[in-house]
Amino acid sequence: MPVKLTAPESSSLLPVRGIQLGFAEAHVRKPNRKDVLVMTLVEGSKVAGVFTLNQFCAAPVLLCKDHLEQSKSNQQGIRALLVNTGCANAGTGEDGLNRAKQTCDALGELLNLQANQILPFSTGVILEPLPADKVIAGLTAAIKNLKESNWLNAAEAIMTTDIVAKGTSRQIQLGGKLVTITGISKGSGMIHPNMATMLGYIATDASVSQSALESIIKYAVNKSFNCITVDGDTSTNDSLILMATNLAGNMEVTEASADFITLRDAMTDVAIELAQAIVRDGEGATKFMTVKIEGGRDEAECRKVAYAIAHSPLIKTAFFASDPNLGRILAAIGYAGVDSLDVSALKLYLGDVLVAENGGRALAYQEEQGSAVMKEAEILVRVDLARGNATCTVWTCDFSYDYVKINADYRS
Amino acid sequence: MPVKLTAPESSSLLPVRGIQLGFAEAHVRKPNRKDVLVMTLVEGSKVAGVFTLNQFCAAPVLLCKDHLEQSKSNQQGIRALLVNTGCANAGTGEDGLNRAKQTCDALGELLNLQANQILPFSTGVILEPLPADKVIAGLTAAIKNLKESNWLNAAEAIMTTDIVAKGTSRQIQLGGKLVTITGISKGSGMIHPNMATMLGYIATDASVSQSALESIIKYAVNKSFNCITVDGDTSTNDSLILMATNLAGNMEVTEASADFITLRDAMTDVAIELAQAIVRDGEGATKFMTVKIEGGRDEAECRKVAYAIAHSPLIKTAFFASDPNLGRILAAIGYAGVDSLDVSALKLYLGDVLVAENGGRALAYQEEQGSAVMKEAEILVRVDLARGNATCTVWTCDFSYDYVKINADYRS
Repeated sequence: MPVKLTAPESSSLLPVRGIQLGFAEAHVRKPNRKDVLVMTLVEGSKVAGVFTLNQFCAAPVLLCKDHLEQSKSNQQGIRALLVNTGCANAGTGEDGLNRAKQTCDALGELLNLQANQILPFSTGVILEPLPADKVIAGLTAAIKNLKESNWLNAAEAIMTTDIVAKGTSRQIQLGGKLVTITGISKGSGMIHPNMATMLGYIATDASVSQSALESIIKYAVNKSFNCITVDGDTSTNDSLILMATNLAGNMEVTEASADFITLRDAMTDVAIELAQAIVRDGEGATKFMTVKIEGGRDEAECRKVAYAIAHSPLIKTAFFASDPNLGRILAAIGYAGVDSLDVSALKLYLGDVLVAENGGRALAYQEEQGSAVMKEAEILVRVDLARGNATCTVWTCDFSYDYVKINADYRS
Repeated sequence: MPVKLTAPESSSLLPVRGIQLGFAEAHVRKPNRKDVLVMTLVEGSKVAGVFTLNQFCAAPVLLCKDHLEQSKSNQQGIRALLVNTGCANAGTGEDGLNRAKQTCDALGELLNLQANQILPFSTGVILEPLPADKVIAGLTAAIKNLKESNWLNAAEAIMTTDIVAKGTSRQIQLGGKLVTITGISKGSGMIHPNMATMLGYIATDASVSQSALESIIKYAVNKSFNCITVDGDTSTNDSLILMATNLAGNMEVTEASADFITLRDAMTDVAIELAQAIVRDGEGATKFMTVKIEGGRDEAECRKVAYAIAHSPLIKTAFFASDPNLGRILAAIGYAGVDSLDVSALKLYLGDVLVAENGGRALAYQEEQGSAVMKEAEILVRVDLARGNATCTVWTCDFSYDYVKINADYRS
């Protein structure tokens, strides 16, 4: 069961002027589920994207990058997004690229757009050919129900092993104008820094310059999707897209605007909520853990320690068992690869409880204190490396029987 | 159940002249189990050790390193080893060091040795104080049953979550003299390159120079214990010890001897069998996987790819399910961090079956072929990176419900 996470109410996902969403049940892999999503963007919208660093990146990722690049020089602009679940179209070589192109061609024809004005996304099983005919056959139905109010349906249409749909909205004022930000995401396994099998779409009606939007996406992804991990695997298909439709009537936000930070932080806030939702719905998750490292010489070493803890199957199973087996955390700190770490200087906290110092268990620590913290659904693990001022926070979940079950059964 | 691994017959573990082994049930953590082992070495024996790189290394590891170093200058030589299970004496600071010293003092008194002629080892739960009094109380019984023929009892005395005892012997001829090599090991979780929660002891009656023994241990560990992984965690206590008692009557083996390679390879062979046994008995293991990377530019990049595959919980759960979800392997290759990898040039094999080439599924591949290979208890995953001549092999196991169960329950 997801950890303190329920699907949003449809009414809580606010429409973003200029964005319409339509879905279809296209039987890509299984019947009776929404598995194709079409999003259209009004003319003049700006789009920015960040994608997986996996070198085996999927065909749609290659096309997305190419189309985004083209849109910057040809002035036509991205006007639609096409997402399918059930098949990742990854590890599919030249044939996979052709199939992804076919779906863009087909949607372009139906919407009267060039194929390179469309960004394609796929998620699901790797190494299997995309049934492009099925995706294409679903497009008419998806276009027929295009609506600004379809965000919850859209969030549902991109789910794979997700248990609940993920989405959230914010409204802010920019120069006296009401601006809406709405985002959705999917992903629950193969979640790792530098993205994951995760898709995220965040839209605003604000007017933003292309350069400011690029700057915001880099900032937001580093504070959100690059700070989560479920199982340490980095997927072939991860993509985060920011869209701005330019209909809110605000003065265009540039990096020099007084409004820039306001918009950046609000979009980042949405990205963090969407990223955390992925961890809360991590495959088999029963606990949500925040791993906070402080007192590092630089952020890089803080991240090493944070991920050594957040990736350790031994630690994650201990959290599943609510067992304050904190020695496993010390061991992870010790093998994280921090140069000349003074293990006698660092401090380990579980929640507010000081657990370890002077290279061993804190004198005042009682196991009941640790057990009490471990029984909570949300747990803070905090390490003070005591050698500098850098910090880093990552979010992860525990490792349960159900993680194994879900991933052993995923294709069946 | 361990994968194609049963405990050795007592008679198959050959005595090594000059080494005696004695054990006790000392109730370190639980009653009714052998949990203390004493090994004595005849005067004139040579000893070499390699230890965990974890910076939170345990108190006994610190002492072992110190005593080994002292033995090189003080001419007294290491004369006994003391192992306890049930408590790792790690993350225990200054107090832990004192308790480990107390056990060495006590054994030294009983055996009429200096404390620094004894190497202490602990394995078990981290961050708890070593009950040194219990260990010490067990020493008399252990010394009472010291015997050259106690290797199987010794293998049993060092088990923690191991299901079966691990040991093997070889005999070779060195200059016309019969030489015996016998080794035991323990460890089944937290197994990772650069050792693991694993202890290994390999003894020979050959005469070997200290420098040749040091050279052999470095070679052997890189071909064996540094090539295995169960869950990616590197423990605080890993130790591998090589001992040579100098009683076989052969001419002393030095690095320049014609015999050197013969002895080195035989000891390495024992180390490989002991290391593989740890993986075969990996916590919850149902499959034994060999991951072989070929065609790399250097061994380092081959290791990156091998460990990306061998550590992935997604891949390990798919192997548990006998599901040829090979896309997950391609994804791991893609995120392994190999510079400018040409994904269209590499080839992926499952057993003898070519699964992927040209960036996607091989044309001739049929899923039934993959399924047939996946049903075996031992599986070879082979990747040809097609960019050089370097190779690397690692061994790992799958990831099952029982892994979670064992590690969620370990302390209870």
